[in-house]
Amino acid sequence: MLSPPWRRFALPSFSRYSAASTTCRANHSLSRLNPVTAQDVDHFAKILPPTSILSTLAPFSLAATELDIYNNDWMGKYHGNATTVLKPKTTQEVSDIVKWCHEKRIGIVPQGGNTGLVGGSVPVKDEVVTSLANMSQVRSFDPISGILVADAGCILQSLTDYIAPHHHVMPLDLGAKGSCQIGGNVATNAGGLRLLRYGSLHGSVLGLEVVLPDGTILDQLTTLRKDNTGYDLKQLFIGAEGTLGIITGVSILTPPSPQASNNVIFALPHFDNVLPLYQLVKRELSEILSAFEFIDRTAYDLAVKHGQGRALRDEDVEGAQCFVLAETSGGRREHDEEKLTTLLETLLEADKPLINTGCVTEAVSKEGKVYKYDISVPLSTFKECVDITREHLRSMGLMREGAVRHVLGYGHVGDGNLHLNVVADTYSSEIQDALEPFIYELVASHRGSVSAEHGIGAMKTHALHYSKSAVSIAWMRKIKELFDPRGIMNPGKVLE
Amino acid sequence: MLSPPWRRFALPSFSRYSAASTTCRANHSLSRLNPVTAQDVDHFAKILPPTSILSTLAPFSLAATELDIYNNDWMGKYHGNATTVLKPKTTQEVSDIVKWCHEKRIGIVPQGGNTGLVGGSVPVKDEVVTSLANMSQVRSFDPISGILVADAGCILQSLTDYIAPHHHVMPLDLGAKGSCQIGGNVATNAGGLRLLRYGSLHGSVLGLEVVLPDGTILDQLTTLRKDNTGYDLKQLFIGAEGTLGIITGVSILTPPSPQASNNVIFALPHFDNVLPLYQLVKRELSEILSAFEFIDRTAYDLAVKHGQGRALRDEDVEGAQCFVLAETSGGRREHDEEKLTTLLETLLEADKPLINTGCVTEAVSKEGKVYKYDISVPLSTFKECVDITREHLRSMGLMREGAVRHVLGYGHVGDGNLHLNVVADTYSSEIQDALEPFIYELVASHRGSVSAEHGIGAMKTHALHYSKSAVSIAWMRKIKELFDPRGIMNPGKVLE
Repeated sequence: MLSPPWRRFALPSFSRYSAASTTCRANHSLSRLNPVTAQDVDHFAKILPPTSILSTLAPFSLAATELDIYNNDWMGKYHGNATTVLKPKTTQEVSDIVKWCHEKRIGIVPQGGNTGLVGGSVPVKDEVVTSLANMSQVRSFDPISGILVADAGCILQSLTDYIAPHHHVMPLDLGAKGSCQIGGNVATNAGGLRLLRYGSLHGSVLGLEVVLPDGTILDQLTTLRKDNTGYDLKQLFIGAEGTLGIITGVSILTPPSPQASNNVIFALPHFDNVLPLYQLVKRELSEILSAFEFIDRTAYDLAVKHGQGRALRDEDVEGAQCFVLAETSGGRREHDEEKLTTLLETLLEADKPLINTGCVTEAVSKEGKVYKYDISVPLSTFKECVDITREHLRSMGLMREGAVRHVLGYGHVGDGNLHLNVVADTYSSEIQDALEPFIYELVASHRGSVSAEHGIGAMKTHALHYSKSAVSIAWMRKIKELFDPRGIMNPGKVLE
Repeated sequence: MLSPPWRRFALPSFSRYSAASTTCRANHSLSRLNPVTAQDVDHFAKILPPTSILSTLAPFSLAATELDIYNNDWMGKYHGNATTVLKPKTTQEVSDIVKWCHEKRIGIVPQGGNTGLVGGSVPVKDEVVTSLANMSQVRSFDPISGILVADAGCILQSLTDYIAPHHHVMPLDLGAKGSCQIGGNVATNAGGLRLLRYGSLHGSVLGLEVVLPDGTILDQLTTLRKDNTGYDLKQLFIGAEGTLGIITGVSILTPPSPQASNNVIFALPHFDNVLPLYQLVKRELSEILSAFEFIDRTAYDLAVKHGQGRALRDEDVEGAQCFVLAETSGGRREHDEEKLTTLLETLLEADKPLINTGCVTEAVSKEGKVYKYDISVPLSTFKECVDITREHLRSMGLMREGAVRHVLGYGHVGDGNLHLNVVADTYSSEIQDALEPFIYELVASHRGSVSAEHGIGAMKTHALHYSKSAVSIAWMRKIKELFDPRGIMNPGKVLE
C-alpha cells in the first residue's frame, strides 16, 4: 500500500512504483520523437560532469530503479520510462542540452520538485528528464523593493527561509512547499493559500529566464516592477507547464511579512450561509483577510477522525452542514484582533464561530486513494457540485466498501476554487469512468474551469475543451507550434 | 497655444490641431496597406447604421475637422489622416469590420479614450479608426466576488461610479479616468496610482473578449479567479497596444472599497533619505499603504507656484531636497490613524512630516510643452537620473529661456517608476535630439525600462531595444506575425 502523500517528504522511497499502473494515457504525437541513445549520453557527458547524469544506458548503466523518483509522480498515478536524467547546474548547460535534443528530435521533460497532481512533470514515454534540482542559488534579493531573483530549482520553503530575516514572505504558499521548486510553481501557475491576499503569479512574477525549445536563452529576468515595452512574453510561460520552454530563472516580487496571523473556524448550520458570511467577513476584515476556505461536513469529520484534533466543541458542531476557515495576516496584532473581535460579535447573533488551526488537505489522503478534482465553479454551487457527484456515484452503485468511501469538498471561497475529492479504496477504471467526463460536464454546465490551479498536465489534455473554446485551443496550438515546431518540449502535456 | 492637458476633459476642442507638427515618424510597413475607398465605406454602411460612421468620403463627405479628435492625440504631438471613423456597438459589428479590413488589407487603429501619451491610439497614416466609444455597457457585476464584466468602451470613472454603491473600487486609477476606457487601460497595461496596493492588470484582469486581426472572436471572457487550463492567451493582449487584436470586453476583479483614506506629505532634507523612509513606512503601514510617491524639489515648487496651495510651512520646506507623498487606504479609520500616528512619532526624531493633498501631475503642464519620460530605474538612481539629464541639457546650452525651463522628476517609489519631465517653451527637434537617445541610454545603463507604464505606441518603437533584448524583440515579431500576418492591426505601433 502507498504511503499517504505527506509522508513522502519524510520518506522518499519510490521503488514500489515500478510495477506501474494503467492510468497513463498513450500519446501518438510522441511517435515522431527519437529515444535517447548511448551516443546522446556521450554527448551529454561533454556538457555535464558525470555527477549530473543518471542513465541506464552505457557507460552509466544504472539500475532502472535508480530513476524511479524521476519517472513516477508522488501519487503513484503517472509512470514514465526515461532512461536518462540530466541535472544541469547552469542556464548555459540547460541551453546546450536543449540544443542537442532539438537537433536530434529527442523529447524533454522539465522537472522541478515533481509534486504536481496532473502528471505534468513525469515522462509519458522515454523522454529525457531535465531536473532543475541543481540550479538552486538565490541570485539576488533587494530588501527595500522586496524583489527576489532565484534559480528555477530553488525550493519554495528555502526561499521563504531566505527572505524571512528581511521581513518578507513569498507571495505563494502550498502544501508541497518543502519539495516544490519556484520554477515549477511558475510553470504550473501555482495558486495555493495566499492567492486571495497577494494575487496570482501573473501579477507577482516580474521576469523569467527561459531556455526555448531550440536552445535559445530568452532573458527577461528583469527586476522592474513596471515595464510596458512590447508584448509581455514571460506571461506565456506562466502556466504553460514546461511545454514552451524550460524556466531557468525567476524574478518575483515578495510582500512584507505580516506581523500577526490569526485563524478562525466557523461552523455553519447551512451551506447557504457561506456567501453572506464571505461578504460580511470581507467587509469587516478587509485588507487583513488572507484566506477564506470552505470545508464540507465530510472533509471536517475526516480531519477530526484522523487526529487533527477537535477544532470545535461537539455541541457547536452538531447539525453544522459545513465549515469555513478564515485567516488574517496584518501589520499590527492589536488592530487585527480588534477587527476579529468586532467580526465575531457581529456574527454571534446568527452563527457559532470558534478558533481552530486544523488542516484538511493532509487528513483526507489517509483514507485511501484520492481522485482529486480541482475546479472553479460559482461559489453558490460548491455544495451542489459535491452532492450531485455523490448521488451520481451512488446511482452507479459505487458508494460502497471496496469502491468509493467518501465524496467531499473543500476549497478557496475567495478564489471560487473547489477541491472536489473522491476517496476510494483503490484506483479503478470503473470509478474513473464514472467520474469522467461526468465532473467535467458538470463544470462546463456552470461555465467553470476543469483545472483551477493544478494545471492540465498529462491528466486533463482530453478535458481542455470543457473549459476552453475551439478558437482558444486552436490558438494555443499555434503558439505551441511557433515555439516548438518539433514538439520536443514536454510532449503529451497540456495539448493532446 | 495648447490648453494644458487637464483642461481637455472640460473643453474637448481639437480643431486647433490640424496644422500638424512634425514629430510623427514615417512608417514604411504601412505602404503595403490599402487606403479606405468609397466602396469600403459602402460596405461599412451595411454593417453599421449611418450614425456609427464618420467619413470624409462620399456619401458622408464630412469636413476633415470633424475627425480631428480621432486623428490627433490630446497632447497635440501625434497626427493621423484617417478618412473614416467607425463606432460599432457590438462585438459582432467589430468582427464584421475587421473581417472586411483583413480581406481588403486596410489598416485599423483601435481607439479608446485616446488619452495615451505615446501616440498609440491615433493613425500613423490613413488607417480606419475603430472607436470603442459606443460599446459602453456593463455586462455583469457580482457584488460577492467583486467580478465586473464590461464592454471595452466603458469609461473608467463610470465603472468606478457603477460599483461604488456595492462597496468596491476599480483596481486602477489614473489622471485620465474621466475619459480613458477600460479596454484602452487593458491594451496599454495602464499602471496608475493603485498599482502598489492592487497589483498590475496582468493579475486583476480575469478574462478578455478580443476580435483577432482576421475577424475571429476570441472569447476568453471568463469570470473565474483561477483557471489553469492551457496557455493564458489573454495575457498577450494586455499591453499589446491593440497590435494583436481589438479588445471588446473585459472581466476584471475589483477589490472592496477601503473605508478610510489618508495622505501624508514628507519634506526630506536629502534624497538619500527616500529609501530608508520607504522601508520604514512599508513596515509601519504594511497592508494599508496604497501609494508612496516621490516628488523632487522642482516639481514641488512648480506645484506651489501654480496655485496648488502650500502643503507645508515655508520653514519646513526650506532646505528640503525632495518630497514624498504617502497614501493609506484601510478598512477601519481609527486603526489607520493610529498606525499613521505611530509612524509620524517615529519619524519626527529625524524628519519633518506634514499633511497635504496637493497634486503634482496637473501643475507641471501649465508651464509649457512637456517632454514626458516614463521610465523604470533603480530607486537609488531617481535623483541622479534627473540631475544628469539637467546637466546634459545645460552642457548643450539648452537650459535657457526659449528652450528648456525645467527638468523635474516625480514618480511611484513603490513601483520603481520615475516620471522624468522636461518642460520647454516649445517642442523642437533640437531638444528632442538632445533628449533622445540620451535618456534611453541612461535607462539602459541601469537595466531599466524606457516605458514603465505609458507603453511604446508610435513614439518609442525605435527605442524598444534599449529595454528588450534582440531575442525578445525577435519573438515579439513572431507573435505579431502569427496573429496578424497582413499587418493591418494598429500598424506602426510597438514594433517598427
